[in-house]
This record gives sequence, C-alpha cells and structure tokens, in this order.
Amino acid sequence: MTYFSGQKLSYDSQPFAVKVEERDDVGRIRGQQAATFRRLPIPLPDSPRVPQGIKKPFSEVIKANIGDAHAMGQQPITFLRQVVALCTYPDLLDSPRFPPDAKDRARRILQSCGGQSLGSYSASQGVSCIREDVARYIERRDGGIPADPDNIYLTTGASDGIASILKILVSGEGTARTGVMIPIPQYPLYSAAISELNAVQVNYYLDEEHCWALDVSELRKALYRAKEYSNPKVLCIINPGNPTGQVQSRRCIEEVIHFAWEEGLFLLADEVYQDNVYSEDCQFHSFKKVLHEMGPEYSGTVELASFHSTSKGYMGECGYRGGYMEVLNLHPDIQAQLVKMLSVRLCPPVSGQAAMDVVVNPPKPDEESHQQFIQEKEAVLSSLAHKARLTEELFNQVPGIQCNPLQGAMYAFPRIFIPPRAVEKAEELHTAPDMFYCMRLLEETGICVVPGSGFGQRDGTYHFRMTILPPVEKLRRLLQSVKDFHVRFLDEFS
Amino acid sequence: MTYFSGQKLSYDSQPFAVKVEERDDVGRIRGQQAATFRRLPIPLPDSPRVPQGIKKPFSEVIKANIGDAHAMGQQPITFLRQVVALCTYPDLLDSPRFPPDAKDRARRILQSCGGQSLGSYSASQGVSCIREDVARYIERRDGGIPADPDNIYLTTGASDGIASILKILVSGEGTARTGVMIPIPQYPLYSAAISELNAVQVNYYLDEEHCWALDVSELRKALYRAKEYSNPKVLCIINPGNPTGQVQSRRCIEEVIHFAWEEGLFLLADEVYQDNVYSEDCQFHSFKKVLHEMGPEYSGTVELASFHSTSKGYMGECGYRGGYMEVLNLHPDIQAQLVKMLSVRLCPPVSGQAAMDVVVNPPKPDEESHQQFIQEKEAVLSSLAHKARLTEELFNQVPGIQCNPLQGAMYAFPRIFIPPRAVEKAEELHTAPDMFYCMRLLEETGICVVPGSGFGQRDGTYHFRMTILPPVEKLRRLLQSVKDFHVRFLDEFS
Repeated sequence: MTYFSGQKLSYDSQPFAVKVEERDDVGRIRGQQAATFRRLPIPLPDSPRVPQGIKKPFSEVIKANIGDAHAMGQQPITFLRQVVALCTYPDLLDSPRFPPDAKDRARRILQSCGGQSLGSYSASQGVSCIREDVARYIERRDGGIPADPDNIYLTTGASDGIASILKILVSGEGTARTGVMIPIPQYPLYSAAISELNAVQVNYYLDEEHCWALDVSELRKALYRAKEYSNPKVLCIINPGNPTGQVQSRRCIEEVIHFAWEEGLFLLADEVYQDNVYSEDCQFHSFKKVLHEMGPEYSGTVELASFHSTSKGYMGECGYRGGYMEVLNLHPDIQAQLVKMLSVRLCPPVSGQAAMDVVVNPPKPDEESHQQFIQEKEAVLSSLAHKARLTEELFNQVPGIQCNPLQGAMYAFPRIFIPPRAVEKAEELHTAPDMFYCMRLLEETGICVVPGSGFGQRDGTYHFRMTILPPVEKLRRLLQSVKDFHVRFLDEFS
Repeated sequence: MTYFSGQKLSYDSQPFAVKVEERDDVGRIRGQQAATFRRLPIPLPDSPRVPQGIKKPFSEVIKANIGDAHAMGQQPITFLRQVVALCTYPDLLDSPRFPPDAKDRARRILQSCGGQSLGSYSASQGVSCIREDVARYIERRDGGIPADPDNIYLTTGASDGIASILKILVSGEGTARTGVMIPIPQYPLYSAAISELNAVQVNYYLDEEHCWALDVSELRKALYRAKEYSNPKVLCIINPGNPTGQVQSRRCIEEVIHFAWEEGLFLLADEVYQDNVYSEDCQFHSFKKVLHEMGPEYSGTVELASFHSTSKGYMGECGYRGGYMEVLNLHPDIQAQLVKMLSVRLCPPVSGQAAMDVVVNPPKPDEESHQQFIQEKEAVLSSLAHKARLTEELFNQVPGIQCNPLQGAMYAFPRIFIPPRAVEKAEELHTAPDMFYCMRLLEETGICVVPGSGFGQRDGTYHFRMTILPPVEKLRRLLQSVKDFHVRFLDEFS
C-alpha cells in the first residue's frame, strides 16, 4: 500500500477543440476523450475537493502509456551519447575515455557547424554533413537506390516534420477543404494536426481481423465517400503501425502506392519504427524503396514524404527531438514554401541533429566502437522482440482480451471485452467505456495505459494501448496485474 | 581576390505568401522583399545561367546578418557546456576535469528527468526543476516579486513560445479577425507568424528621431485605425529592441501597461535581449516587474506573456533552441488550450532545457565555477558594449548614414541615404532600394546585412540591420568597408 502524496494524477478539467496526444508529464492520459474524464468521481490527489495522500492498492505507478524508452529504464546507446557529449564540450576531444571513432564523428559534425559550435544556428534544413549522412543511410537501407541530401530536412522529432508538411499541403474552405486520410486506429498527432489546420480528417479503418492490415478497397471506399464533402489530397501511412504494431507487406505497400498514383494523393509515410520489427515473417520495406522499384512511371511522379526519428528504434532518444524527413517529387513551389516556413523557426535543435547523425552513421565494422554498439543495439531489439511475444501470449490467455501479434513498433493494442453493464455505468458517468476501464485499471493497479478511443476504433469495440517498454520482469508482473484486474472487472459487471 | 567556389549565395527564386526571417544557412538574406530579389541581375554562383567561381573583390563573406554569436567566433560559456555535457554523458560525473558545482547541477537536472536521462520526454511544459529555477531567477531579477513555476513554460527557443501563444490568441474572420500590434521596425518572426495565422498585422511605428522610443500616442492611433477593420487583441513589445536596439524606460513601460489595461490588450513582451544593455543611462526593466509594481489593479488583470532564450545575452546558444515563457493572468481556458496544444508536440528539446537551466541558475559566489563564469560573461558583455559604441561612432562619421545609439540587443539599424538615381535604378530592377543597396554591399565587400524593408520602416526611409557580433578588429574593418562602399555608392548615383 502507498500514498499518492504529491504525485499528480489529475486530468485536465477544460474541454478543448483540438484532440491531443496521450503523453504528458506525470501520467496524465491524453486522448480524444480526455476532456470527458473530469466527470469521473475518482478521488484525484490535487483536486481541491479531495484530501492529499489517498491510500492506493499498489506500490508504484507504471507509465505504460508513453513510448518513452529511457523513462522505462532503457539505457542510452553509449556511442551516441559519446558523440553528442564530445560535440557539446570539445575539450573532451583530448580525453582518453572517448574512442577515436566517436571523436572523428564529433569533429566532422563540428566542422559543419558555424564557428564549430553546437550553439550556432544550423541551416533551417539542417547541418549539411548530417543531411549527407542521412542520404547515405537511406541508400544503404534501400539497397543502393540514390538519395539526395537536398531532399532531406532535419526536423525537431518526426512530429515537427509531419506537422510542417501537412501545414503546407492543407488549404481550402467548405467542400474544397483538404482531406487527409489517416488510419484508424491512428497516432493522435495526426488528428490533432488536422484539427489545428482546419483540414478534414478522412478515416480509413485497419483490419483488426487480419492483424491490422491495410486493405486498399477500404482506402478506396473512404476516399470516395470523402470526395463528397472535401478535397482529399493526402494519404498518411504509419508503418510499422502505431498503436497497432503491424508491419506492412511489400505487396500492400505496392498497392498503396498504386492507389496514390491513380488518385493523385500525396503520400506521408511515418516510418519512425523502421528498426522495430520483431516478427520473423515480417520485414520493413520503405515506401521510398518500393516506389523506386515500381519503375519510373511511379517513382517520377508520386509525391512522398517519409519520416524517421531518434525517439524510437533501439535509441529511444525522445528528449533530443531529433528527426528527418525525405521528400520526393515535391513540386518546386511546395518545396520553396516548406524551406521558407521552416526558416521562420530558425533551425531544429543542433544537439538533436547530432544524435540523428549517429543513428544514420553508426560505427563501421572496422571501427573501435562497432562491437559495443552492435551489442547494445541488439540487446535492446532482442529484448523488445521477446517482450512483444510475451505480451501477445499473456494477453491472449485472458478471457475477454484478444491481442494481434505485435509484429513491430513498441505497443500492444489488445481488444477488450467490456460487459454491457460496465458500458452502462460508463455512460452514466458520461465517459467512454474504455476510458472508464483504463481509469479503473489505474486506480486498482497503478498501471497507466491509453484507452482506444484516444486513437480511434470501430464503434462498439474497445481497446487500450500499452507499451512493451518496461523491463521484462516488470512487464510480466504488469501483464499479470492486467489479467487479474480484467477478471475482477468482468466479474463485477457480469 | 577570391572565388565564390561552392559557397552558395543564391536567393530563393520562388515567391511566397509568408514573410520570412532573415537568417539562413549560407548567408541568404531573408525578409519581406526577399522574393523580389531574384530579379536582380547579379551573378549568383549556383544559378544555372552563371558559371561557378566568379572572382570577387574580397577575401571573405562576413555574415553580419544573423544574431548568431558562436558562428561569429564567440566562445561558449564553459560552465553551461560542462553541465550539458555531464547531463549528456553521466559517466563523466566521476571525472576530475569537471568542477563539483557543474556536477551538482547535472545531477539535479537528471534527477528531474524520466529514467534520469536527457533522452526521456519531459513534461510538455518542461522539466519541473528547471521551471522552478526559472521562477527563482525571475524573482531575483525582479527584486523578489514572486514567480510561480506553474506559469513557466519551457520552449524551443523564444520563437516557439511566441508562435504558440499567438496561435492560441488569434481567431475570427473578416473584420473580427484578431489584430496583433507590432512595432515597426520589427523582428520578422512576428509578421511571419501573423501571416501564417491569418491574423491582421497592426503596425505601430517606433520614433527614430527619439532613439526608436515607443510613444503611446502612436500606439493609440494605430489601435483606433485598426479597430475599423479588425479586432486588435494583442500588443507585442520587443525590449531591448530588435532590430532597433533601444531599451525602454520604466516610465514608457508603465504607459504601455496602462494602455494595455485600458484597452484590454494581451501583452507579449519579447525580452530575449534582457542581458544585452550597454548604455549607461539605460536599465532593463521587465514588464512583469513593472506590472507588479503598478499595483493589484494592473497586476491582477493585465494578461502578459514574456519570453527569454538561451540564444542571445552572453550565452549565444542559438543551436540548443532553449527558451522559456512566463504567463500572467492567463484565462484558465486559454491556459488549458496552451498546455494541450504544446502536448501535441511532446516537449521542447531537453538538452536545450538543460542549457536554459544554467542561464537561470548560474554558479553562486561561493561555488567553484563562479569566478570563471563571471569573467567569461563579463568579457562577452563588455566586448559587446564596446562594439556597440564603436559601431554608432563609426557609422555616424559617414556622410549619409545616421545611427541611433545602440542601447541594447546586438544590432545596429542605421538609416542610410539612398540617392534618387539609385532608387530609380532599383525600381527598374523591380527591387526595393535598400535591397539593391545591401546586394551591392555584399557584391563589393562580402559584407552581408539585412535591408530595412525586411523589418519594416517609414516610407521613403532606408536602413539595414547589421550585427555587432564580429570580433572587434574585424568589426572595425567591416565598418571601414561599409564607409568606403557608401561613399562610392553616393558617388556613383549622385
């Protein structure tokens, strides 16, 4: 037993037009339903009506709501931090505690910075040598297909790139408003950005029965419906999926590209989980690569922006806000607008750019840090693969929980059965049934997950998103707690 | 004599609706007139029509267009970089090359980070202990007037805070569109943000005859005119001024606050140059402090957001994108919207937050690093003060250049006489006369400055903005070159 003393677990009490992301400082769940939550009569420690220090039946709050690896105990990749530390404090370039390859990387980055300092503004598009390294990385990843550093934009995390490109693409009023197609379930950055830009959110549903696969006939239906009341111009893909964890097959990607080509849609490929593929039957294929391999009719015409980030993968460096975007076939007017818009915000954080550089330019086999780098990287990825299997397995042992295989990314998005009496109870409390469920889970177990309604789901189905980031033993206990809770919950409301 | 070889000095060839900032990677001048610049028939090395490697009559391009201190050779403050390096690579906490006070700061920051890592997301509002340090800093700065960490938001540079708060405040269509009052000359972030948000830019002119003072009767006139076609709600102040370098008197600030109170305007106080005051007759007064001292009738009602940054002052850490905003009397609905909007972008870069922490929590007199910190800080500031005087003095020796005292910030904004024949020539070339002048200056001397039309100026007057950041001997040569150029220019067009 413990007290909440001082640990804020309150929720915002103000409704707000913009749908927002789930993450926050202190465990606050965010999502489309967050605003309704205030009506739940659960004692919250910083509410004036409730005394501080309410006893809770758990010893720790586990924040399984955010893809925040380091906060869950994952250690930074040594080489990455060495390079960034050397760039930060170049006096260390003479220190024997840093390996020569880290020093080489740091010197090269600094030589590309004004006054050889991370404290200078970079170009709005990013430090030139880092953009070159990104281009070389993409070429290696995609089997030699050329990448042009001029098409690379370093960004403040992937979110900034996505929001920026959407801002350029969105226009119009009334039925001419730009429609932006997004998967449901989706990562709420998309719905928030669409809402902020006054664009039209065009939902296409992923197929839960087929491991959250993307079905092009569903895309087509969604597009034709949307054309009646908007001007759909953009198609967003998240691969591997967030929150759904599916990894798209090559064939599916081809179909999506063909569809975009037919319909003249601008493709946004959110590929921030490209290193997070666990299922042995799956492989990550970049949209860029598939587009190129489909031949010049496609690769010379389909407009594509794809995104990567330092925040996910094996690095988990969310706080650095590093990322990049590669654009293809962007109309010169659009590209010029993009550069100018980005220049207003001066530049992405240069230390985040340096972190991105290590991701795209890791130690080579003949370099001093290679072995340790590979060991650290593979330890993180194999642990995630193990936890992905464990999570799927344990969830599927619970009656009333169904979980698709976690092929990639870092979340489970299990479907939960909520008994009709619990749904009624939630309605009485003016809250979404899955929000009611997740709050009960938090109150009874200290486990913080995000209700499916924050991501979107088919009517009448309920889910939650949970990260698989906690250390494996903690994750096992967590899954056991969810199981016990779920059984009690079914019991209470049957 | 030298060649341009490979050094890009091209300008964008695409016109664009959004007025943009002056800075860029490689010396590109940005400003409201930038789009017209492409028509200037000056050989640009990356233009397809012009061969690379044109001989130029100078040996170096001096980028005096950007307030980018480190790029101009200013060295980072050692203590700041030590703390950030320790946070980046905590293995160094056992290294004897780092002083104990830097280690204490780093430990404290890391303890406030998830998993004790800079790689974790922080709260969207910023790391809690850093917000506390900001609040204590404001209290010390303002003679003990209380500051609440809950009113502090850490930001991605000041630009991000300014753009975010404007986004929340702007609404309406037609004559109900929000009017945002900005000084002319202004820093182009404001015009760009206003344009992006489809708000109405309401200009009030600073009084060049009185050292760019803000005159409240001018504010009042501008407001009443603007009410005929918009809904003016926001008043932006830049103090010390950019590009104009004036430092507002306490009395002027009181008048502005009284005006905002009378008219129900939301005050935005851009105080990023608060450490950059050189004139002995001037002192920086924060809007927060003056507001508080005017009594509860004002301090309990006037809405104020004020901004600071790691980029200017004596730190010059532009690349870290660190900043904060303090809000006062924000309506709870607005505050809730702000928090939710910020949460979509996850968090400001955590290394930039750490850099901000050092600025607001520098070594204390009894700490190991105090002496060196003070020496480094004062060396930068006294050099800037010296260069401010030198610049004013030398400009005023040139016939046809008039320069107000540089009381603060880091720019000169001299008025230049452009002969009618040069104005005609510029018109023939479809370019602004001051852009024509600045391009000629660049082509003949390698000195890159920003035309006044990028900031706004009274019709028929011409200016340019030049930083005073180059090392003093280089600055002296630069000023001599400008003088020689100006005399030649007058000669050519008289």
